[in-house]
Amino acid sequence: MDENYLLESQTARQLFFDYAKDMPIFDYHCHLPAQEIADDKKFDNLTQLWLNGDHYKWRALRANGIPEDYITGHKSDREKFQKWAETVPFTMGNPLFQWTHLELNRYFGIDTPLKPDTADSIWATCNRMLESGNYSARSFITKSNVKALCTTDDPIDSLVYHEKLKNDETFKVKVLPTFRPDMALEIGHKSFLEWINKLGDIENIAINSLEDFYLALKNRIEDFHALGCRLSDHSLSAAFYSKASEEEISKIFKKRLNRQIIVPEEEVKFRAAILSHLAQEYAKHGWAMQLHVGALRNVNSKMFKSIGINTGFDTIANFNFINDLANILDDLESVGLLPKTILYCLNPTDNYLLAAMAGNFQSHFPGKIQFGAAWWFNDHEDGMLAQMKTLANVGLFSRFVGMLTDSRSFLSYPRHEYFRRIMCNLVGHWVERGDFYTDFDFLGQIIKGICFNNIRDFLGVEID
Amino acid sequence: MDENYLLESQTARQLFFDYAKDMPIFDYHCHLPAQEIADDKKFDNLTQLWLNGDHYKWRALRANGIPEDYITGHKSDREKFQKWAETVPFTMGNPLFQWTHLELNRYFGIDTPLKPDTADSIWATCNRMLESGNYSARSFITKSNVKALCTTDDPIDSLVYHEKLKNDETFKVKVLPTFRPDMALEIGHKSFLEWINKLGDIENIAINSLEDFYLALKNRIEDFHALGCRLSDHSLSAAFYSKASEEEISKIFKKRLNRQIIVPEEEVKFRAAILSHLAQEYAKHGWAMQLHVGALRNVNSKMFKSIGINTGFDTIANFNFINDLANILDDLESVGLLPKTILYCLNPTDNYLLAAMAGNFQSHFPGKIQFGAAWWFNDHEDGMLAQMKTLANVGLFSRFVGMLTDSRSFLSYPRHEYFRRIMCNLVGHWVERGDFYTDFDFLGQIIKGICFNNIRDFLGVEID
Amino acid sequence: MDENYLLESQTARQLFFDYAKDMPIFDYHCHLPAQEIADDKKFDNLTQLWLNGDHYKWRALRANGIPEDYITGHKSDREKFQKWAETVPFTMGNPLFQWTHLELNRYFGIDTPLKPDTADSIWATCNRMLESGNYSARSFITKSNVKALCTTDDPIDSLVYHEKLKNDETFKVKVLPTFRPDMALEIGHKSFLEWINKLGDIENIAINSLEDFYLALKNRIEDFHALGCRLSDHSLSAAFYSKASEEEISKIFKKRLNRQIIVPEEEVKFRAAILSHLAQEYAKHGWAMQLHVGALRNVNSKMFKSIGINTGFDTIANFNFINDLANILDDLESVGLLPKTILYCLNPTDNYLLAAMAGNFQSHFPGKIQFGAAWWFNDHEDGMLAQMKTLANVGLFSRFVGMLTDSRSFLSYPRHEYFRRIMCNLVGHWVERGDFYTDFDFLGQIIKGICFNNIRDFLGVEID
Repeated sequence: MDENYLLESQTARQLFFDYAKDMPIFDYHCHLPAQEIADDKKFDNLTQLWLNGDHYKWRALRANGIPEDYITGHKSDREKFQKWAETVPFTMGNPLFQWTHLELNRYFGIDTPLKPDTADSIWATCNRMLESGNYSARSFITKSNVKALCTTDDPIDSLVYHEKLKNDETFKVKVLPTFRPDMALEIGHKSFLEWINKLGDIENIAINSLEDFYLALKNRIEDFHALGCRLSDHSLSAAFYSKASEEEISKIFKKRLNRQIIVPEEEVKFRAAILSHLAQEYAKHGWAMQLHVGALRNVNSKMFKSIGINTGFDTIANFNFINDLANILDDLESVGLLPKTILYCLNPTDNYLLAAMAGNFQSHFPGKIQFGAAWWFNDHEDGMLAQMKTLANVGLFSRFVGMLTDSRSFLSYPRHEYFRRIMCNLVGHWVERGDFYTDFDFLGQIIKGICFNNIRDFLGVEID
Repeated sequence: MDENYLLESQTARQLFFDYAKDMPIFDYHCHLPAQEIADDKKFDNLTQLWLNGDHYKWRALRANGIPEDYITGHKSDREKFQKWAETVPFTMGNPLFQWTHLELNRYFGIDTPLKPDTADSIWATCNRMLESGNYSARSFITKSNVKALCTTDDPIDSLVYHEKLKNDETFKVKVLPTFRPDMALEIGHKSFLEWINKLGDIENIAINSLEDFYLALKNRIEDFHALGCRLSDHSLSAAFYSKASEEEISKIFKKRLNRQIIVPEEEVKFRAAILSHLAQEYAKHGWAMQLHVGALRNVNSKMFKSIGINTGFDTIANFNFINDLANILDDLESVGLLPKTILYCLNPTDNYLLAAMAGNFQSHFPGKIQFGAAWWFNDHEDGMLAQMKTLANVGLFSRFVGMLTDSRSFLSYPRHEYFRRIMCNLVGHWVERGDFYTDFDFLGQIIKGICFNNIRDFLGVEID
Repeated sequence: MDENYLLESQTARQLFFDYAKDMPIFDYHCHLPAQEIADDKKFDNLTQLWLNGDHYKWRALRANGIPEDYITGHKSDREKFQKWAETVPFTMGNPLFQWTHLELNRYFGIDTPLKPDTADSIWATCNRMLESGNYSARSFITKSNVKALCTTDDPIDSLVYHEKLKNDETFKVKVLPTFRPDMALEIGHKSFLEWINKLGDIENIAINSLEDFYLALKNRIEDFHALGCRLSDHSLSAAFYSKASEEEISKIFKKRLNRQIIVPEEEVKFRAAILSHLAQEYAKHGWAMQLHVGALRNVNSKMFKSIGINTGFDTIANFNFINDLANILDDLESVGLLPKTILYCLNPTDNYLLAAMAGNFQSHFPGKIQFGAAWWFNDHEDGMLAQMKTLANVGLFSRFVGMLTDSRSFLSYPRHEYFRRIMCNLVGHWVERGDFYTDFDFLGQIIKGICFNNIRDFLGVEID
């Protein structure tokens, strides 16, 4: 991976070095804990910084036959690191290989591949740097030229660390919450009432009716808004459209409050109603809405019981959601309250469905409805190219809001560099073969838009 | 886009220039109005010729944030053109960019890109030429070396303009109707009875029974046949197979005539029966049948109420049709009345399904069952390559009936050139890497077949 | 197709010639009849060796308009060969073209393309060689450097030829049976009881209960095991998961024994129960399990009635199986009896689903759950690349068990060469662009693993 890595034409190189490389990062979707940023967390060693919590790496380790003890179990951090070093060469062709070496290089200056026989030296070098104190959570963010990032937050999460960060004059990066109320829709979930109660407590509202619930959600949205939130997120993996009157939804909600049984049809109606109601609130607040469709979670119950959620046992669903999506967007557009929206699919087979669907509800703001970046199992060169080409073929690539890390790690920002190289290479390819003219001012404007400016304008966040 | 645009090898260039370039066009599927050809329509300006009615451009304008007033609204033609000129650079990567410049170049000799600062001069140049009188509907057709084209016609449409064109000695291009009886299948549609009445009126048959209906359809098929029709078309977006006896279908039809309510199961049975019945008629008349599967129409009801159908609010469905398709083709083959058929899918994810399905019902005529050209949201280089490679991988590419415009515009013929370049480049690539031998006589025969001869022979239309 | 065919970089060539080319073949999934190997079958002419039984070629012939008489009908072998020679040039772009010429070249030294005007000479040359006696079934296998192959066997098939082969000191190639009990799951099939009776007869068990059935299956598994079987296979094309108690399954089985009607829900429950039960037996015996998902068979009933199964009228289904698959793997993992598994899909749209699903159940053995090789309608360069890139993007390419022929022909081994060229070219491409480092020792280990060593170790078969 030399400096021209992935930049296969002169135009691609010019686009990357003159326009993309130095643009700041707006990481509008990640899973960093605000507390760790507020506390400027330090890390004891590379395993704690880099392996703990990264279920992408865990899946690779398991596929390589490594026992769970070395992954999420009781083995020492050094032993875990060794197993990762053994596994890395076997990730040839997987983005983990690129990410691993970009991250070691960009933050620690390592330029030898990680393998069993380099593990000792890399372990020592990185840990020495981590001990130096210049390698804290915030330092990774600022070193990466991040100007803003959006964490992912449940409405019942405390926003105390976001508040601290907002008021911390020493840290200029905007750390904004994202409103992710998945549980608000899941009336059939065993924890629904507990969640409702917590929400009520936070807002000092006794939630005894749908109106109470809506009020609590609205107030919570305003709390988030006050701390700079301009973005919501929903993960959808079951039917989410079925018409019902407000009265019917009220009754369903009451039934649940009374601990009566809710049937599946009612769950769908409720999910649709709450999603629609929230979307209208987002529109009223000028927020954007993210819809992530098509994950199938926790399919390995043995491991779920043993180590819980987000541990590498989620997968791609085959979920036929397109009619539900069309209907909910249509209803929102009909009442004039469709917010800016980003649509993401986990099954790449749905790429064309989403890109085409976005085109049915555009208006007024350039790129108002986005077909979003290659997500999770698609976060690799093939996936990114598929997403970008699909968008280009049936929509406007030039209005794309670009890359995000979706990561739990402070070391993931080189994924933006990786994306930018691939994106510049694609545009360079178009120009070199005559699909577009050589106007670097215009091309540079597009590139800088996709790197940073488009998402900034889309969210309406002011950056100094 | 120089003369070698998209032709990346010497073989590709030789195939294009020696075999493809000068082949005439048989545009066997378009939406041109026969009346405008019969009347040899003139156009006041470029907006009227080029922007009005083109919902591909409208979607790009909306995605670029242009208000509807400048798209289908009250703004002046010049203002609308300016918005298109502003939007064109932002279509980078979309086939609209290529089409725009190919069309401006091939018909008007424009060789500068359309952008805000070239809009004035391009507007003036093109309009001057349009005023000259040499740029009428027919002139675009003949300039494009079109020898035959098939319009798309409802059985209740008048064929008077096709008749005029047939008898017009001054215009040699064959303008043939295509029989597209979508409403004949939609017994649940609110306009079904009105449609039935109109069909009866045209054929002077009081339609009071299924037999009457079949007779009227048969007579109408013969009217179409007399004017050169050799091709039908069906758009299928809901279940279209369910076994029922002739008697049951008769009863369902009677119920509908009596304005009784038809349940969904009955709709499917009726749809299946009529499609099967018509297909057998097509086979008896030596016609080919087109099945277009997987559009989801008018998903934006606000815009539907405001500006109606075919305005850019249709999208890709996720429609699991493969069992229905297998069954209906199987039934037709079983009774020895499966017509030549072209299968098209709107969801590219169905490409392999269709290409494989075609292979199950081949017989006697080379390429009898076709996996058809990349359609609508797939009408771009990636889509064409996906369609052609899929066909090649599981069927016979060499028997492909090739490209169509599917267009409402008289300027769309350069899409054939665009397709031919891509197709020659693909074959050239195969030859250069050793996938096929360098026998230009044979290769030229294949290329000319896909450009023109295959569809001519498939439809059995004689061209002077 | 020169010696560097498909090897587009220096690295690719080095990988192929230094590591891949001379690796032996372990053809772990084919449909060769053990009897023909045991008997060392001779062939009268090229049609008998090469065209009879090959439904890939038959589909191409039909798509080329060749009457059935020349395909499976009464025409002479020489006439059939001529029609194939006429058709071959029209297979441009289809893998049949490459296979045809690789097979003619690698076994018969033919280096001219097969076309109408070379048919005579190729017919004569090949037949002369076939008559020489050096071109028997076994000779093709040994010439191809095959060390082991797995046939496909119904539990009610005789294993007498496998036994002969095991005891035949003159033939060193391991010819192992594969346990493919499709009928065991199909309680609704009209031949189910007949099959049960045959199974009982073979094992001398009167099958009057579920316990009897399980015992017979277990005994049969042990018969297969004794002859070296380490692999099972299931073809799944209908729902295969629904929870039911052992008692309920017993009752369903009894009902069927008593010739009572089984409803679809019961069929699913039974299918799930038997599949799960067998999978646990496989795990106990250290076997691997293959699951082939998504074929839709015998869709052309006219031809089915005329010439039966496996004649080229099977196609790709659109079968939403992912929840069933997740559930059955989860249940097996929960009881600690998930065998090594290879997952194959016929619809390439399911590639990412399967590759991601495999990653949820990995443990202990590197590559324990495999996303299997491109199958049937995907067995071409595009399909292989899609499968390998998908695996690489979301799993570990380096642990892939590689290629199989899935063939009924003794001439199909060049498909391994074809695959190896494509695979080496892919890895070479990664190395040349900087996606992986140039360590030929490690790369060679990966290449040799995918060619042969990985499947050998996966199945635990000792090869001298």
